[in-house]
Amino acid sequence: MTAPSAESPDRRIAFQGEPGAFSEEAALRFLGPAIVTVPRPTFDSTFRALAEGAADALLVPIENSLAGSVLRVYELLLEGDLWIAAETILPIEHHLIGCPGATLEQIRSIESHPMALAQCERFISAHPGWKRIPVEDTAGSVRDVVARDDRSRSAVAGRRAAEIYRGAILASDIQDNAENFTRFVLLTPAHDTAPGADKTTLAVRLAHRPGALLAALEPFARRGMNLLKIESRPIHGCPWEYQFFLDVEVPSLGRLEDALRELRGGSQDVRQLGVYAAARPGPLSTI
Amino acid sequence: MTAPSAESPDRRIAFQGEPGAFSEEAALRFLGPAIVTVPRPTFDSTFRALAEGAADALLVPIENSLAGSVLRVYELLLEGDLWIAAETILPIEHHLIGCPGATLEQIRSIESHPMALAQCERFISAHPGWKRIPVEDTAGSVRDVVARDDRSRSAVAGRRAAEIYRGAILASDIQDNAENFTRFVLLTPAHDTAPGADKTTLAVRLAHRPGALLAALEPFARRGMNLLKIESRPIHGCPWEYQFFLDVEVPSLGRLEDALRELRGGSQDVRQLGVYAAARPGPLSTI
Repeated sequence: MTAPSAESPDRRIAFQGEPGAFSEEAALRFLGPAIVTVPRPTFDSTFRALAEGAADALLVPIENSLAGSVLRVYELLLEGDLWIAAETILPIEHHLIGCPGATLEQIRSIESHPMALAQCERFISAHPGWKRIPVEDTAGSVRDVVARDDRSRSAVAGRRAAEIYRGAILASDIQDNAENFTRFVLLTPAHDTAPGADKTTLAVRLAHRPGALLAALEPFARRGMNLLKIESRPIHGCPWEYQFFLDVEVPSLGRLEDALRELRGGSQDVRQLGVYAAARPGPLSTI
Repeated sequence: MTAPSAESPDRRIAFQGEPGAFSEEAALRFLGPAIVTVPRPTFDSTFRALAEGAADALLVPIENSLAGSVLRVYELLLEGDLWIAAETILPIEHHLIGCPGATLEQIRSIESHPMALAQCERFISAHPGWKRIPVEDTAGSVRDVVARDDRSRSAVAGRRAAEIYRGAILASDIQDNAENFTRFVLLTPAHDTAPGADKTTLAVRLAHRPGALLAALEPFARRGMNLLKIESRPIHGCPWEYQFFLDVEVPSLGRLEDALRELRGGSQDVRQLGVYAAARPGPLSTI
């Protein structure tokens, strides 16, 4: 257990992935270049970084506009006691990255995580002679290509990976769909409500009977509080119960407290996972 | 455009993946060994198989218990005019597959799609000397390992892949989480209601105002119709509108028609994507 340094008591931010990952890019853009980013291989080990004294907060993806919610992050939120203190939305822009000095004409192979390759199908099919190589990490593919100094190899990753591994961007924004956004949340041990907070995330567990969800939504609708996102999940081992995750607009903290009081009176189990300022502007903030 | 053969007019089932994929396994278990399975590389080309005369129906995954909803399938359902005629749930069981005659002791590498490797972390960490090789397809990894006849190589995939490529299962059920299920839907051009249908899937588009969802759920709750799944999605290009996908229990077709009539009177846009018999038993049928 390392003691936090005196200069940066709240500035060590753990993220899932290798240095240069989109999560690290989101953390630096959102929190500024003074933070120390702490890479972790999995979501589970990212969440453990706080208890291990290796980080002061986490920045993790919770939703992508193409791939949907990141279920493991929701599960880990429920298993632990962290708090959503803020959110930020990062456009996911894939770039073709090669060795310094390489040109597009020299490239003979393209490597990245299969999800990133799949999101760049149109660009890749325009280069039918290239060998397609799946690897386990987007940022790691850039590190490997630059380390080998082979001008025929290229990787697909974000701008930050090109910067830290000193790769050259040979083609930018090569993804098929321009509307590729990921919403990240900042998770902290303290359950503080930030100034300007206007959004809350709730986990509500309901019995499986007609109208149960309806009754849980009424306290918000009656107070003019917009629902921003809803998703149901089965509860393993409890076949007739289910878990809802709700994002709700918070016009005022007083109204939220009233609604929660009413909700807790009626349903089995309500947990507030955070109260924070909604990211604006961004397509995911307007679901 | 090929005319369907006289013997099997409704039996050519397109699926996404290589021969031996979990989708093909689900199709054969659900529809029996007499069907002809038609592999397609992407979801988009799977959906095109009907218009191209290459298949009579599709079987595609719509939800996985660990990874969540398959958003592209929902999008393609909205873009086209296919109908959910049935659903089936397949437990996703990963096996370690090697060449015939190979033993676990001889293995030095393990290859598969990164998602499959990630779902077998515990098993893989118990073999720290093995090289981990990401590839683009689970079934394809078995095909390659067996074709090379190298007893030090192994792949991770389902039972069907071992069968068709004649690989040997060296270790079975190696996934970390036993509760890994995928729900598949059978999609047909005809909008028929199967006998015993007791579930419907709806796409409802609502304006972004407090209580809009509540008003859309009321017609079901008042008629004692359970909600089985709900998910909201942003509508690209329409910042203040959103799309809900609902699975609702259907106690009787008459009650469903009444509820839909009421719903259509109030909300902007309701589309029925299918009426079918819920898969039972299975954890995903009881959300």
